[in-house]
Amino acid sequence: MNENLVADRPTFVTHLECSMTGERYEADRLHGLSRVGRPLLVRYNLDGVRDAVSRDELARRATDMWRWRELLPVRRTESIVSLGEIETPLLPVPASGGANVLVKDEGRLPTGSFKARGLVMAVAMARELGVTRIAMPTNGNAGAALAAYATRCGIETIVFCPEDTPEVNVREIAMQGARVWRVNGLIDDCGAIVGKGAAEGRWFDFSTLKEPYRIEGKKTMGLELAAQMGWRLPDAIFYPTGGGTGLIGMWKAFDELERLGWIGPERPRMYAVQASGCAPIVRAFEQGEEHAERWEDAATVAAGIRVPRAVGDFLILRAVRESGGKALAVGDPAILKAVDECAKKDGLLLCPEGGATLAAYHQALRDGLVDEEERVVLFNCATGLKYPMPEAPNWLDRHQPIDFDKL
Amino acid sequence: MNENLVADRPTFVTHLECSMTGERYEADRLHGLSRVGRPLLVRYNLDGVRDAVSRDELARRATDMWRWRELLPVRRTESIVSLGEIETPLLPVPASGGANVLVKDEGRLPTGSFKARGLVMAVAMARELGVTRIAMPTNGNAGAALAAYATRCGIETIVFCPEDTPEVNVREIAMQGARVWRVNGLIDDCGAIVGKGAAEGRWFDFSTLKEPYRIEGKKTMGLELAAQMGWRLPDAIFYPTGGGTGLIGMWKAFDELERLGWIGPERPRMYAVQASGCAPIVRAFEQGEEHAERWEDAATVAAGIRVPRAVGDFLILRAVRESGGKALAVGDPAILKAVDECAKKDGLLLCPEGGATLAAYHQALRDGLVDEEERVVLFNCATGLKYPMPEAPNWLDRHQPIDFDKL
Ligand SMILES: Cc1ncc(COP(=O)(O)O)c(C=O)c1O
Ligand SMILES: Cc1ncc(COP(=O)(O)O)c(C=O)c1O
Repeated sequence: MNENLVADRPTFVTHLECSMTGERYEADRLHGLSRVGRPLLVRYNLDGVRDAVSRDELARRATDMWRWRELLPVRRTESIVSLGEIETPLLPVPASGGANVLVKDEGRLPTGSFKARGLVMAVAMARELGVTRIAMPTNGNAGAALAAYATRCGIETIVFCPEDTPEVNVREIAMQGARVWRVNGLIDDCGAIVGKGAAEGRWFDFSTLKEPYRIEGKKTMGLELAAQMGWRLPDAIFYPTGGGTGLIGMWKAFDELERLGWIGPERPRMYAVQASGCAPIVRAFEQGEEHAERWEDAATVAAGIRVPRAVGDFLILRAVRESGGKALAVGDPAILKAVDECAKKDGLLLCPEGGATLAAYHQALRDGLVDEEERVVLFNCATGLKYPMPEAPNWLDRHQPIDFDKL
Repeated sequence: MNENLVADRPTFVTHLECSMTGERYEADRLHGLSRVGRPLLVRYNLDGVRDAVSRDELARRATDMWRWRELLPVRRTESIVSLGEIETPLLPVPASGGANVLVKDEGRLPTGSFKARGLVMAVAMARELGVTRIAMPTNGNAGAALAAYATRCGIETIVFCPEDTPEVNVREIAMQGARVWRVNGLIDDCGAIVGKGAAEGRWFDFSTLKEPYRIEGKKTMGLELAAQMGWRLPDAIFYPTGGGTGLIGMWKAFDELERLGWIGPERPRMYAVQASGCAPIVRAFEQGEEHAERWEDAATVAAGIRVPRAVGDFLILRAVRESGGKALAVGDPAILKAVDECAKKDGLLLCPEGGATLAAYHQALRDGLVDEEERVVLFNCATGLKYPMPEAPNWLDRHQPIDFDKL
């Protein structure tokens, strides 16, 4: 049995804090957004963490995400719900990327996407805090992860998706025991329904960043990356940005790691990658705004980053700016071309959102934002198997003579 | 960087051996079947292995499958081609299985199935031995794994699938750079085409067990299981059996581990699970035969085990009998019910072949072949995401008033 799932380890959460005003909120209680309607961030007694565990001790533990327990909010070991949150591999893509480009392949996590990181944590906390009914708007992957973990620990879930969500995602959510509804609208329209039901006390609202623990789960991408790279972060990270939890979470992770003395002050430049058909963060970045306006008529093949409005917009923009990075938009043709090239040249099938980071990397190379010598990590946030692929129409009649030269 | 992929480690292959006659074949050469048309098995100098590496040293290595290098055939580290062959998690399924049942979730491997284990090894050896063109018959998963690895190291591939192979598999194979053909027939009909082309010298034949290295890759399931369970094997293993490479490979692994002194003489009972609509091994087992006749009109939702005739039939039957296990058939309705229950109760989406093992486990419980106290491992050999799921038809109009009581 994996020790990480059964060992009682000390925890160090002191309080939560409004990401906008810094106002304090009590730990170990159910929270949504702060009083000013902004995300709450979990704060730890990092001196306590430093005394309790060393980098080297962590290196000896099994590598799944529960190794980071001292930096996570779950108090009681029995609250942990797990479907095998393994450390995801870092894969070179020399032919389609370059000699110094690694893809973090998050499609290996339970339910096939990195949403498992956030949801496994949020569900464990919901369980710890007595929640019995959860609702969520989703572009597909988050709903699948929620359904799996909530079902596993007996929490009821209701999920709302934009009407054109890929069939495989909707079916997966239903298979895993959630009630799922297609809605004529986009993800924020679905979010409005969830918010209304939550206001009526019908369920707990699990929208991105509207509860404080998903981000703690996503933070493990940053922790894991640091450990995998020998505590020397890459020069640049390309992250497909919808709600932005992952980017915000990694930025928070790096901050905590520095305070622990486990990494130095150097940071990767963070590139927030969006699709040209839905690029509210890019627009706000370019206009020097702190917040991003809603993007109207959002459309892209990369459904996971089709998020017209993000409640954590200012946190994304802040991290990108502090890091010396940039917000970048890439078109759907470039996304599909990148997916195709990575599969055809490196044998790795990315999801479209992962393809967007590869396309953005090449764009950044051309624009002189990065150079080929720099160590770069691209996030492939889901398995490519969940997404439509082009037809392969070859057909052979075995009863006819076969022309082997034509195969 | 993962040490396992770059460290030069000693290797111990001495020769290959016909699994039927024991005749010796030279190592480090390209081989198909033996002179009598049976699979070849790779043999090692296990005394050398024992002197070179200990169980404890292995435990300190990164946990991916290349940690087993001393027990694998690849000589040159540069021959290794990798897409991140992680150790797959063992997941409890208390609600749909029972307190002592673990699922080995092989869907987390590259290309979403355990075929990656066999193919990564066979491709590395093909590369080492100078092969430039490979062909293979496949029910889908093996072809996808072959395509990915071969593409990654520049080997050309041609793949033949039964005409009703799920669309997602065929497209995945094509995306990853192979040329893929649907054929009006079953997998052995596809195999006949591959054999014909190979006889003409057009390509190297990568059919299950027709080249000797896939089984060495599949063997790592047994090695890994032993290490994960603290070198105490489970009481019973349920394995979805098509060509049977995995079962034969695990049986070989246990034998090698015992010779190394890393496990004792105890063995799990091996249950070879087939679908009622294609159960040649079950029929042969029940009739006390050493070989299995072709199963006519094979049909089952579990495409991976729709294998009417297996070249390694006698090896499967021998392992099952020696272990005190049995070959079991389950019907498609029981398979689909098991998939549904595991998803709905434990939040884990199995592939149909994995569902077959869960259904067979329950059947074995009812028949008194196993009891609930026994520690059992079921193999879920692919991600459930590649398979058709039932529709989820709920639709909600956000412009109408919402009746929350009905959601
Ligand atoms: C595959 C994929 N990539 C990226 C994203 C965006 O994630 P985030 O909300 O962290 O920006 C999503 C979200 O749905 C996704 O499913
Ligand atoms: C999902 C799945 N399970 C089981 C099998 C059977 O594997 P084996 O050839 O080792 O019997 C296959 C083979 O295609 C498969 O794809």
